[in-house]
Amino acid sequence: MKLYETATAPNPRRVRMFLAEKGLLDEVECVQIDLQKGENLTREFTARNPMRKVPVLELIDGTCISETMAICRYFEEAYPESPKLLGETPLEKAQIEQWLRWIEFYLAMPTGMAFQHSSGYFKDRMNCFPEWGDDCKYATERFFEFLNDHLKEREFICHERISAADLNAFAIVQFARVIKVRMQASQSYLNAWHDRIAARPSAHV
Amino acid sequence: MKLYETATAPNPRRVRMFLAEKGLLDEVECVQIDLQKGENLTREFTARNPMRKVPVLELIDGTCISETMAICRYFEEAYPESPKLLGETPLEKAQIEQWLRWIEFYLAMPTGMAFQHSSGYFKDRMNCFPEWGDDCKYATERFFEFLNDHLKEREFICHERISAADLNAFAIVQFARVIKVRMQASQSYLNAWHDRIAARPSAHV
Repeated sequence: MKLYETATAPNPRRVRMFLAEKGLLDEVECVQIDLQKGENLTREFTARNPMRKVPVLELIDGTCISETMAICRYFEEAYPESPKLLGETPLEKAQIEQWLRWIEFYLAMPTGMAFQHSSGYFKDRMNCFPEWGDDCKYATERFFEFLNDHLKEREFICHERISAADLNAFAIVQFARVIKVRMQASQSYLNAWHDRIAARPSAHV
Repeated sequence: MKLYETATAPNPRRVRMFLAEKGLLDEVECVQIDLQKGENLTREFTARNPMRKVPVLELIDGTCISETMAICRYFEEAYPESPKLLGETPLEKAQIEQWLRWIEFYLAMPTGMAFQHSSGYFKDRMNCFPEWGDDCKYATERFFEFLNDHLKEREFICHERISAADLNAFAIVQFARVIKVRMQASQSYLNAWHDRIAARPSAHV
């Protein structure tokens, strides 16, 4: 299988961390796509993902799956013997999905919007509204605080063990440096959790 | 179980449609939350969902699950004998999730943002950037066109049968009226698909 991705971008990193935690990283051959050069805008890439985003997983038969969590879902379901990162019971699966969506809408989305609207990194292909970007930056800061409160007396975000929620939140907490949002020294629970995830081999793939 | 929801809002409608397609609507007692009056901002509601959004599912033991798709996931997993709306095989599950995320990021999110930033409906509790709202409105229009193309020679969005992708897209296509985005007469495939979903009993709960 081929994983079309960009080593420095946060969403592909979420997939690599997910695969590493499952011991499945060797199942994919990573193919780098240079976003700033627009390698995701070619006709060839658009045929793989009409939304022109990384990552994209291409199966052996050429079938393509876009979207970080859809790719993760594929590996979760197709390799049932690997460690479960999306929950075991119906309630666990639902609670992890709740957190995945909170992390998506209140952390990843605002961080990405703040980056895109304030930095102008993709200004050749989108309209930028810097004041909206600033608003998103504050939303990211609020979620850091919310996560810090949640992690009081908890080792992991859900169910006292590693899940995709930790991996996704970790990748974005680190990426938020690009919008100058960093963990505060006062956020001791967030810092401790960050250091626990950072110590895992999956944080270095 | 209790479902805290708002009858006129699109996300709760997605859950009701999902339950109706599964024949599980009688499993929940719907409790109405008036968003404009701020009934979602009370201390009591915040304890159920710190993000202060509807819908929220409260299980018999008081455990609360937030987020539309997390609630749907709970019913999909807890009632395995009901019709599957999130896929059967690993590939189906991944492809439906890909579409659910496309619908979320390129249809539901822009429609909601256009509504919130242009109408000022929640201006007592958020900053509004009308130009960003306009940009989101155009994104919604583009997705209508994309969906129309996709539905050429297809009855449903995924795998030739009803899935959560159809329900979610349908609820938002109808909700987009509030931002004055409507299906064009030229979008014949989108119109035909809309009418097929609208004819299902689940579209009327």
